[in-house]
Amino acid sequence: MADQSSGQKVWRVGVAGLGTVGGGLLSFLAECPDFAPAGGRAVVTGICARSRSRARTVDTAAMTWFDDPVALAKSPDNDIFVELIGGSDGPAKAAVEAALALGKPVVTANKALIATHGAELAKLAEANGAPLLFEAAVMGGTPAVKILRESLVGEDVVSVSGILNGTCNYILTEMETKGSSFADVLAEAQRLGYAEADPSTDVGGFDAAHKITILAALAFGGAPNFAAAEIEGVDQVELEDIKLAHDLGYRIRLVASAVREGSGVAVRVHPALAPFGHPLAETRGALNALFIEGRRIGRIFIQGPGAGAGPTAAAVAADIADVMTLAKRPVFQSPASTLVPEPAISAADRISRVFIRLKVKDQPGVIAAVSETLAEAGVSIDGFLQKPSQGEGAVPIVLTTHATAESVVLEAVERIARLPAMLERPKLLRIARV
Amino acid sequence: MADQSSGQKVWRVGVAGLGTVGGGLLSFLAECPDFAPAGGRAVVTGICARSRSRARTVDTAAMTWFDDPVALAKSPDNDIFVELIGGSDGPAKAAVEAALALGKPVVTANKALIATHGAELAKLAEANGAPLLFEAAVMGGTPAVKILRESLVGEDVVSVSGILNGTCNYILTEMETKGSSFADVLAEAQRLGYAEADPSTDVGGFDAAHKITILAALAFGGAPNFAAAEIEGVDQVELEDIKLAHDLGYRIRLVASAVREGSGVAVRVHPALAPFGHPLAETRGALNALFIEGRRIGRIFIQGPGAGAGPTAAAVAADIADVMTLAKRPVFQSPASTLVPEPAISAADRISRVFIRLKVKDQPGVIAAVSETLAEAGVSIDGFLQKPSQGEGAVPIVLTTHATAESVVLEAVERIARLPAMLERPKLLRIARV
Repeated sequence: MADQSSGQKVWRVGVAGLGTVGGGLLSFLAECPDFAPAGGRAVVTGICARSRSRARTVDTAAMTWFDDPVALAKSPDNDIFVELIGGSDGPAKAAVEAALALGKPVVTANKALIATHGAELAKLAEANGAPLLFEAAVMGGTPAVKILRESLVGEDVVSVSGILNGTCNYILTEMETKGSSFADVLAEAQRLGYAEADPSTDVGGFDAAHKITILAALAFGGAPNFAAAEIEGVDQVELEDIKLAHDLGYRIRLVASAVREGSGVAVRVHPALAPFGHPLAETRGALNALFIEGRRIGRIFIQGPGAGAGPTAAAVAADIADVMTLAKRPVFQSPASTLVPEPAISAADRISRVFIRLKVKDQPGVIAAVSETLAEAGVSIDGFLQKPSQGEGAVPIVLTTHATAESVVLEAVERIARLPAMLERPKLLRIARV
Repeated sequence: MADQSSGQKVWRVGVAGLGTVGGGLLSFLAECPDFAPAGGRAVVTGICARSRSRARTVDTAAMTWFDDPVALAKSPDNDIFVELIGGSDGPAKAAVEAALALGKPVVTANKALIATHGAELAKLAEANGAPLLFEAAVMGGTPAVKILRESLVGEDVVSVSGILNGTCNYILTEMETKGSSFADVLAEAQRLGYAEADPSTDVGGFDAAHKITILAALAFGGAPNFAAAEIEGVDQVELEDIKLAHDLGYRIRLVASAVREGSGVAVRVHPALAPFGHPLAETRGALNALFIEGRRIGRIFIQGPGAGAGPTAAAVAADIADVMTLAKRPVFQSPASTLVPEPAISAADRISRVFIRLKVKDQPGVIAAVSETLAEAGVSIDGFLQKPSQGEGAVPIVLTTHATAESVVLEAVERIARLPAMLERPKLLRIARV
C-alpha cells in the first residue's frame, strides 16, 4: 500500500478540512514527518478545504488540491485519509465511508460523526480491514479515547464524567471571575476566536454530548447512542446563579456524564455545581477534565487541553502513528457486528443533590412556606442562604438539598413555583457527584 | 504460535511471580479470559512462584507449575510470558531475556529491570521481533507509559513530574493528618501491608526513581538512564518539617521529575513542598499523580491508583491485550539500536525556590544575622515564620525563598549553618514548581 522503495516506509496522507486542526496537522507533519516510532514517514500528498485561495500556514505547493473530499478519500495517491471537515452527515460522512469502503485507514476528529454513526462506520471499517481512529474527537490532545479503549480494556467501568467542552468552561470561568453576563462573555469569546460564530453546538451542550456518547460506548462496550443522551447547555446559566452558587462554596460547570446504573446507562450533559477544591471546580478556562471510575482500578482523573491547533493536531498525529503499527483491533470494544446500544435509563429515577434558586416577595412567612413544602415532599435542606432584598421587595433565596430522587425534587419545586410569594419560576441546578 | 483450532485464538500465558499483582492477574484472567477486544482468549497455562504450597486466590490445578522462571519463560506451552518477580537482575532478568531470545512477547511490572536494563532488553526484543511491554511498572492501573509512548508520540515533551510512589505519599499524608512521626507511620503502614518489611526501596526514593527514569526515556526519546538519577527519599522528612510547611501553606510530597534543560535532562527524586490547592498537594494517601508538559499540547495531569492488585493487574492485562493486536512498534521511542542515554545535567545549575528550617538560640540579632547572610548571597526571602520558643531557648524559624540558583542557596545555607546562634544544621527542602 505504502511506498517502500526508499527503504523507509512512506505513508501518504490525505487531509480533508484545513481549519484550526487541519492547519495544525500540516504544520506538525511539515516539522516532523518522521515522528512515528514505528518507523514510517508521514507526508501529506493531498488536501481539500472549503476555500482553495485561503492562506495556509505551510507550503502546500507539493500537495494535490481536491475540490471534493470524497475524491480525496478515494484517491490512490494517499494511504491514510484524515477527515477534519466536521458535521455528523454530508461530505464528512460520505468521504469517511468512501475511504473505509476501499479499506483505507481513516483518522478523524469528528465527534458528531462518530457519536451519531459510529457503529455503522465501525462495521464498514472492520468489513474492509481498515482502522478508524478518533482520539482527536474527545479532549483534543488529552488522551481519553485511547485510555478507555486500550488501557482500561476488560475493566468494569462504572462511570465517566467530566468537563468536555472548553468553550463552555471558558464562558463559565469568565462569568465568575469577571462578573459578566453570559451574553457579554460569549460575545468576547467569539471576538477572540474561542467560540464559533454559531455557538449553539457548544453552548447548547451538543458538543459535550457527542463526546460523552463516544466515551460511554468505549467505557461500557456498547454502540454510541447519541439519541439517548439528555442534553442541557449553559445558555440558561445566569450570572445570578454563578454568584449565589459561589456564595455557597460552589462553581458551576457543564458536566457530561455516563453512568452505568442497573441494566442501563444514563448519558447526560447539564450544568452542575462543584464545590471549591473539587477537581472539576478547579478546572478553569478552556481546560477539559475527566473522571473514569472502574470496579478494579478505582478512580482515574485526567485533565488537559481540550481543543486548539497544537493539542488536537497532536492527537491526530498519534492516531496516524497508530495506523503505522498495523495493530488489529475493533473500532469499539467488540467487533462492530456485535455492538448494540446500551439501554438508556430515565433521569427521573436518579438520586441527586440539587441547588434551588428562588426570587420571592419580601414578606413574612415565605421561608416557612418554602421549607414546609420541601419537608412535606421529604426533601431535606443541606444549605440555605437568603440575600438582602434587591429593592422592589424582591429577595433572592438559594438552598441546596441532601440527596433525593430527582422526581421528588421536581414535584416539590413545582409546588414551590405555585406559592403566591414567588416572583420568578424557581431555578434548579444539580450538584455534581463528588 | 497461538492455538487457532477452536476458531477463537487462544493466547497461553505463563506467569512468573504470584504476589499481589500476580494473584490479581490470575483472578482477572479467570474472571474474564475474553476481555481483549482484539478477539483473543487469554488462558494461564504455566505459573512459577517462590512457594509452591502457598494458598492462591484462584484454582491453579490446570496450570503447570515451574520451579524455575527461566524454564517457564522458555516453555513452548505459553505464548506470552508475564514477569512479576521483581528486581533489576537475577531470575527476573534471566527469565525475560530467555523469553525475548525466543521471540516470545513479554509483559512485566518490573520498574527496576526496565529502568536499569531497558535499552539492552529492548535490543533483544526488537532483534527477535518480540513486544516488551511494561505499563504496570509505572503508576499501576493509571496509564502513564502508554500515554507517553503512543499518545504523545512526536510531541516535544518539556517535563514529566509527579508523585510516583504511593507508599511514600501514604506516609507523608498520615504524618500530616495524624501528627505522627515517620517511624510510627511506617510501622503502621507495614502492619497494614502498605509498606514492605524492608521499606528502603520505597522510602529511599529508589522506586520512584526507577519509574521516573522509565518515563523520562519515553518522554525524551532516549534510553533509560537510572544511573544519572539524583535520589533523595522521605526518610529524612521530620514531623516538624511537615508541621512548619503546613503553617506556611504547603504540604510535603516526594516529587519525581524529569526536565529537559538545554542539551540534557535532569532526573530527580526528592521531597518538595507543594502549596495547598496544587494538584500534588491535593494528591493524598496512596494515590499517584503525574504532570506531562509538552510544547504543543500544553500540560496534561493524570491522577489515580499507583499500586494494588486490581489496578496493577488491569495494567498487565491491558498489555496482554496489546500483544494480541500484533502492533509493531519499538519498545521505546525509536529502534533500540539507535537509543542513547540523555546526557544528565547538574542539579546545582537549577533554579529553585526553597524552604529552609532553622533551630536557633532565643537571643537578639539572630533573625538579622540570618536575613543578612541570605541578602549578601543574593537570596531573596518570600515567606518567614518564627514560632514561639520551644523551651530551653530553642526557637524554630522557617523561611521560603524566591527562585535562586541552587548552588547559591546551598552556599548561603552553609554560611548560616556556621552562625553561632544555630542549634541544629539547617534543613533545606525544595518547593515544587507550579
